[in-house]
Amino acid sequence: MNPMTAPSAGDRLCFSQVRQRTLALTAQWSIEEMAAQSMPDASPTKWHLAHTSWFFEQFILLPLLPGYRPFHPRFNALFNSYYQGHGQPYPRSQRGLLARPSLEEVLAYRAHVDEAMTTPEEHFRETIAPWVTLGLHHEMQHQELMLTDRLHLLWHNPLHRVPTGGPRSLRPALEAREAQSFVGGRVEIGSDAANGFSFDCERPRHPHHLAPYALDSRPVSNGQWLAFMADGGYRNPDCWLSDGWQCCQNEQWQAPLYWQQDSQGAWHQLGLAGFAPLDPDAPVCHISYFEADAYARWAGARLPTEQEWEHAAAPHPVAGHFAESGMWRPRAANGEGMVQLYGDVWEWTQSPYVPYPGFRPTPGIAGEYNGKFMCGQFVLRGGSCATPVAQMRPGYRNFFYPHQRWQFSGLRLAQDLNHARLQP
Amino acid sequence: MNPMTAPSAGDRLCFSQVRQRTLALTAQWSIEEMAAQSMPDASPTKWHLAHTSWFFEQFILLPLLPGYRPFHPRFNALFNSYYQGHGQPYPRSQRGLLARPSLEEVLAYRAHVDEAMTTPEEHFRETIAPWVTLGLHHEMQHQELMLTDRLHLLWHNPLHRVPTGGPRSLRPALEAREAQSFVGGRVEIGSDAANGFSFDCERPRHPHHLAPYALDSRPVSNGQWLAFMADGGYRNPDCWLSDGWQCCQNEQWQAPLYWQQDSQGAWHQLGLAGFAPLDPDAPVCHISYFEADAYARWAGARLPTEQEWEHAAAPHPVAGHFAESGMWRPRAANGEGMVQLYGDVWEWTQSPYVPYPGFRPTPGIAGEYNGKFMCGQFVLRGGSCATPVAQMRPGYRNFFYPHQRWQFSGLRLAQDLNHARLQP
Amino acid sequence: MNPMTAPSAGDRLCFSQVRQRTLALTAQWSIEEMAAQSMPDASPTKWHLAHTSWFFEQFILLPLLPGYRPFHPRFNALFNSYYQGHGQPYPRSQRGLLARPSLEEVLAYRAHVDEAMTTPEEHFRETIAPWVTLGLHHEMQHQELMLTDRLHLLWHNPLHRVPTGGPRSLRPALEAREAQSFVGGRVEIGSDAANGFSFDCERPRHPHHLAPYALDSRPVSNGQWLAFMADGGYRNPDCWLSDGWQCCQNEQWQAPLYWQQDSQGAWHQLGLAGFAPLDPDAPVCHISYFEADAYARWAGARLPTEQEWEHAAAPHPVAGHFAESGMWRPRAANGEGMVQLYGDVWEWTQSPYVPYPGFRPTPGIAGEYNGKFMCGQFVLRGGSCATPVAQMRPGYRNFFYPHQRWQFSGLRLAQDLNHARLQP
Amino acid sequence: MNPMTAPSAGDRLCFSQVRQRTLALTAQWSIEEMAAQSMPDASPTKWHLAHTSWFFEQFILLPLLPGYRPFHPRFNALFNSYYQGHGQPYPRSQRGLLARPSLEEVLAYRAHVDEAMTTPEEHFRETIAPWVTLGLHHEMQHQELMLTDRLHLLWHNPLHRVPTGGPRSLRPALEAREAQSFVGGRVEIGSDAANGFSFDCERPRHPHHLAPYALDSRPVSNGQWLAFMADGGYRNPDCWLSDGWQCCQNEQWQAPLYWQQDSQGAWHQLGLAGFAPLDPDAPVCHISYFEADAYARWAGARLPTEQEWEHAAAPHPVAGHFAESGMWRPRAANGEGMVQLYGDVWEWTQSPYVPYPGFRPTPGIAGEYNGKFMCGQFVLRGGSCATPVAQMRPGYRNFFYPHQRWQFSGLRLAQDLNHARLQP
Repeated sequence: MNPMTAPSAGDRLCFSQVRQRTLALTAQWSIEEMAAQSMPDASPTKWHLAHTSWFFEQFILLPLLPGYRPFHPRFNALFNSYYQGHGQPYPRSQRGLLARPSLEEVLAYRAHVDEAMTTPEEHFRETIAPWVTLGLHHEMQHQELMLTDRLHLLWHNPLHRVPTGGPRSLRPALEAREAQSFVGGRVEIGSDAANGFSFDCERPRHPHHLAPYALDSRPVSNGQWLAFMADGGYRNPDCWLSDGWQCCQNEQWQAPLYWQQDSQGAWHQLGLAGFAPLDPDAPVCHISYFEADAYARWAGARLPTEQEWEHAAAPHPVAGHFAESGMWRPRAANGEGMVQLYGDVWEWTQSPYVPYPGFRPTPGIAGEYNGKFMCGQFVLRGGSCATPVAQMRPGYRNFFYPHQRWQFSGLRLAQDLNHARLQP
Repeated sequence: MNPMTAPSAGDRLCFSQVRQRTLALTAQWSIEEMAAQSMPDASPTKWHLAHTSWFFEQFILLPLLPGYRPFHPRFNALFNSYYQGHGQPYPRSQRGLLARPSLEEVLAYRAHVDEAMTTPEEHFRETIAPWVTLGLHHEMQHQELMLTDRLHLLWHNPLHRVPTGGPRSLRPALEAREAQSFVGGRVEIGSDAANGFSFDCERPRHPHHLAPYALDSRPVSNGQWLAFMADGGYRNPDCWLSDGWQCCQNEQWQAPLYWQQDSQGAWHQLGLAGFAPLDPDAPVCHISYFEADAYARWAGARLPTEQEWEHAAAPHPVAGHFAESGMWRPRAANGEGMVQLYGDVWEWTQSPYVPYPGFRPTPGIAGEYNGKFMCGQFVLRGGSCATPVAQMRPGYRNFFYPHQRWQFSGLRLAQDLNHARLQP
Repeated sequence: MNPMTAPSAGDRLCFSQVRQRTLALTAQWSIEEMAAQSMPDASPTKWHLAHTSWFFEQFILLPLLPGYRPFHPRFNALFNSYYQGHGQPYPRSQRGLLARPSLEEVLAYRAHVDEAMTTPEEHFRETIAPWVTLGLHHEMQHQELMLTDRLHLLWHNPLHRVPTGGPRSLRPALEAREAQSFVGGRVEIGSDAANGFSFDCERPRHPHHLAPYALDSRPVSNGQWLAFMADGGYRNPDCWLSDGWQCCQNEQWQAPLYWQQDSQGAWHQLGLAGFAPLDPDAPVCHISYFEADAYARWAGARLPTEQEWEHAAAPHPVAGHFAESGMWRPRAANGEGMVQLYGDVWEWTQSPYVPYPGFRPTPGIAGEYNGKFMCGQFVLRGGSCATPVAQMRPGYRNFFYPHQRWQFSGLRLAQDLNHARLQP
Repeated sequence: MNPMTAPSAGDRLCFSQVRQRTLALTAQWSIEEMAAQSMPDASPTKWHLAHTSWFFEQFILLPLLPGYRPFHPRFNALFNSYYQGHGQPYPRSQRGLLARPSLEEVLAYRAHVDEAMTTPEEHFRETIAPWVTLGLHHEMQHQELMLTDRLHLLWHNPLHRVPTGGPRSLRPALEAREAQSFVGGRVEIGSDAANGFSFDCERPRHPHHLAPYALDSRPVSNGQWLAFMADGGYRNPDCWLSDGWQCCQNEQWQAPLYWQQDSQGAWHQLGLAGFAPLDPDAPVCHISYFEADAYARWAGARLPTEQEWEHAAAPHPVAGHFAESGMWRPRAANGEGMVQLYGDVWEWTQSPYVPYPGFRPTPGIAGEYNGKFMCGQFVLRGGSCATPVAQMRPGYRNFFYPHQRWQFSGLRLAQDLNHARLQP
């Protein structure tokens, strides 16, 4: 399987492969780096490693494998993220205080779960197959979070600092935008069983009416973002939502997260491999919804709805720059037509994360997976350079609060079209 | 004009009538009651009286009436609510500190503005007509806020207490719900110019696809809400959105706002006329979105979308129990079929307040009126017993944050229908 | 009685006179000004008027006057400041929400209490005499607070603004300081019964050992404070206590409270009569302990202890510029030798407010008056231009938290002396 | 040297011995336990190890050792605790985020500093001798903090839980107190050069007047504390300072820190070796000043002043249960007369931490060591079971804020005596 292309519907995810990839990501990380927590929204690597094992233990091994003995009687409380049906979870903001269990114990926990999960008993394997798939998709989500949470931790360490003497002074880019037009009308949105795995929140597939619109052929670049900054974008309340302006003032935002200026005024960007000079052609990244929305208004455009995005992206193969490259940094666009729909950066849409018409949560405790977060968050689409490619599909809905910036989040502009403009 | 029925499209609002009604509301209120501010979300009556005058002064008199002299050079800063285009507004949370100007001066300010506005000059009157209409709708919105903010202030005063010895013990109601079915399909949503005045956020009228659904014939009642409470609704995280549960715990909600139990366990409800025993047949009121959503999940139903609500309500005349009754307390439902769609209580919908496809803000500073709040809030429909009837129309979108409870807000349940169930 | 000189021990305070003076202070204040609360530390005038009446009702009339009927059954809860022995007090930060009772009712409450208190019955009058004295001293304390709280409210009203075009540019003063030396040794500190009324916290009179010290002959002036500011006093952490520097940064202090610079850079100071140009020769006022302490360190001196202050002040008659002048603004020093020990500004000492050796709280609920605040506060001495002169005596201990600035608080410098320097 | 007795004035602390003891403490601790930070007041062990090395580097090696090369150019910013004279320190509350440098690098840093410090050059050794002593006393303070901070971290880990089935139900103790009387008068307080090392805040030695008083012969025990709890001590505002009651309510205190009740109601206490049943005869520990003060008021007594404590303790040899025992848990009192003045638990005094008369901070940056904290804290005396014995002397002043509980802090009661009672 080409790691940069999503598996087709018939492919089955390989349990061992996904689990091993989780560990492979951490091969070079120190014990201390895997234990620290930089903010309540982020979790220590060690916690991610344990929580993804807890998921298999709680949802598969304990209910379905006769005679299974849990690794530790208290791990349920420690590594339950938010499932109220499973008792009071340990407070999220204190995960960095869990000096015990040690990393070593957590790795033993993983091995214990892995061994039980690979029991060769046939009936068991068939019963659990859909749950395994769910668990592996859950694990892949955490693979991405391990990267974004680690980057946020690095950001707080003064030992990672911008090299003095930046290489060159970037000029803001004012290039013409290119866009593709869509006539809209009645379209079908959402995932269905025929297309392989999907989360409950992506279903059911349903009709939706779209007005004519245009979507830019590429995401907004760092160079374009510099033009926004140079034009006072962070100081002009006219561009911003009311809550966004409040947030921008409180947090004193003046640039995307992880940007830093050296003494000569050149911009650098922190990535998982340290600081590097800002690439003006790469998509802008680590911006909040509030910033994305303000940029769009400044540019005389708007963010797309998630339906507009999905309608435009569905015909394209799920291929692009994903986590398997090991680069974990958005790259400059390359090619003609609609590019970078998948991979590189998640694209904020203007759509609040709400249930689709006819939405039904997965029955049982796994029903807490998605539905109970349908308030106050916005949908992002397309995956990023930190997303496993097997995770991605046109209907995938990621969601974060509008003030959050630590994901690999960028934007692509959209615009209303009147019918006249669509005529040849 | 029958005060309980909305004016038809051809009617013109009468400037003097609307302005006088604002003052009439306050006829019995003391100077101190009109000066106090009970929370940042609420404003003193005195401030409402001044702000609604500021609106006419800033948007009409200053730009359009030659030779107009503002009443006071500093009132712009004091009574600007949130228009960044008009300079730094005075901090919202400190409006209760504005001991000066006195109520007397504010009333003089109103008179000064009223006199200038009623200049008989014909050209001026024609030029400003659309702005006057906007200003009067704005004023009516504040008429309602004056009532809700006053009620919130009363709530904090220990002199308003429940009479000891409540009259009777209420039993939770477990009546069967009645609902009306809708086949949905492609419908038209939103207001347009043909229907008289509307705010920019209600436009443009646009097609929307609706799946088949059912809508309850009446709002949820106090008696039904007691059944939810008796069943542990406020203690069961399964019913709640994640953010809602957090909020419920932090705020220690155990009943709707303004409910109080006497020593015998009987419930009473604070209204603008003081405490009264809870009426089990009246619609539940002063609940947050979080509570409405939790109730719906508990009841095996859901909140309607705003499009479902509008589609169901549009054929009905805009008539009901509105502010003109002077009662300002929701009444028990009365009649057959769909009742209380308009008036009594605002109905929470599950729709986040977002722009309609093709939304364009009003040009100029008035463009800050609605668009910049399109984040994190939910739409309510139908008006309440504190809403002026002339304010209401099928397309009217009210919006508040999901934790807010001090408006006259209730709910009506909805449900998905499959096609089969719709067949006769 | 000369209003600027404290009554001698034999004088009795006149109940009617003190009570009437409280009302006289408010003669020109509007109903709204008397109802608003600008911060949790301050109270509305209306609340002060009621609370001082509550004090007589609760501590004298209810327990000691047979047949007394309280004015209102709920006023105890509303106007109890902090006496836990009297039930749960109404939350301090919400006193501004008490739109009811109206000012009119509060004045009737005062009249009701006054009438009962002036019952001519001889036995009653004798029994209550010590409590009346306590209540009148309590009332005088609130007279001062009514002034300081009102000033704080005015500060938040943008209608009180600095006149453009300040009269002149002030130059920082760098005058030589003059000081008086004291040999110290074993001295007596504290009030005793022989000296008339005193609060429990001023007693018992007790021996204390003082090392030789010097005390400046006058308080630090505004001109001297400008020199501190010009030298970067508000930007230099070396001058500040650790907690003080934190507070200075958080609050962004750059000058004393109520100072404002006009467009030409001239300083003005808000007083109860509005803004006036800063008088360089008047004592600096409205500074926190943190600022006073930082200034002293910057000046190479220190704050005096309360014992040093009392030892120096005790031989002087209690005379100076007090509230009776009706000016309520510190005036420039005048005269030779030690001046302004009494009146004009309270003087911060370096002494935490702690019990004297052998301290015994007043028995009963009045024991909550002082003792339970003996933590985290610092003592101020000497009274201010807003203090009734009858309140003052050498042993009087005022106390506030080190970050508080809204009192008429200034400072006088002290210094250690070695014995050699004291020799002629 | 007997580790449980303080060195006499002539003894010199041995650099290598103190430094090695720091490392010895951590011998059994895991990397993760040494990296985590449980609250802003506490620091990770790794940070303590680095900071104590930074102290020698900044105050001795850099200014005084020609040719010394700092271990790492950025460590100054990272490991400066609060010395503003040394540039902006890294935010205290984020020390747990310093995943880098690794523990290994920090140990290399220690070795680098140790090697430089043990340069055999004679002149250097003599020059630095007083600074080395200061640095070793500083290091010993951090040895204690390493223990208290570690205990606080353990407390947040649910893996350390009370064993089910507590051994026995403790009964509150109501034993008679025994006390020793002191006539007081003019006494000498404070350390001076003749007595060996002391911090600047312990000096100068100065006269102080003491009234007659009595001091209990032993600290308050756990059993006595249970009697306070059983009598509603945590629910009765009468016992508490106003700020203390506020704190008790906000924090929902119901017992000392680290106490936990098992399902049968038996109390257990978390120590560095895990949970153990509460020993009723051991001194109560991990209480705040607010609790100590409330207990004393409840018991009809008071806390001693620091002068009273010092006057009583000075004649006794500095011997007791200190950190060298490796037990790190207060033990039951043992013996006749005044016991446990030194060791076991720090004893809260009623004395705010303020400068002694004639106090002069150490010149230079080390002057920030003590003086700038002289606000809002209270003095504790006598050392604890986690204090190195070489640290202790009669004049040693420890200080913490009144709400802090994570130190080994307890109390001993005092009482006023009148002269009559002292007569035989």
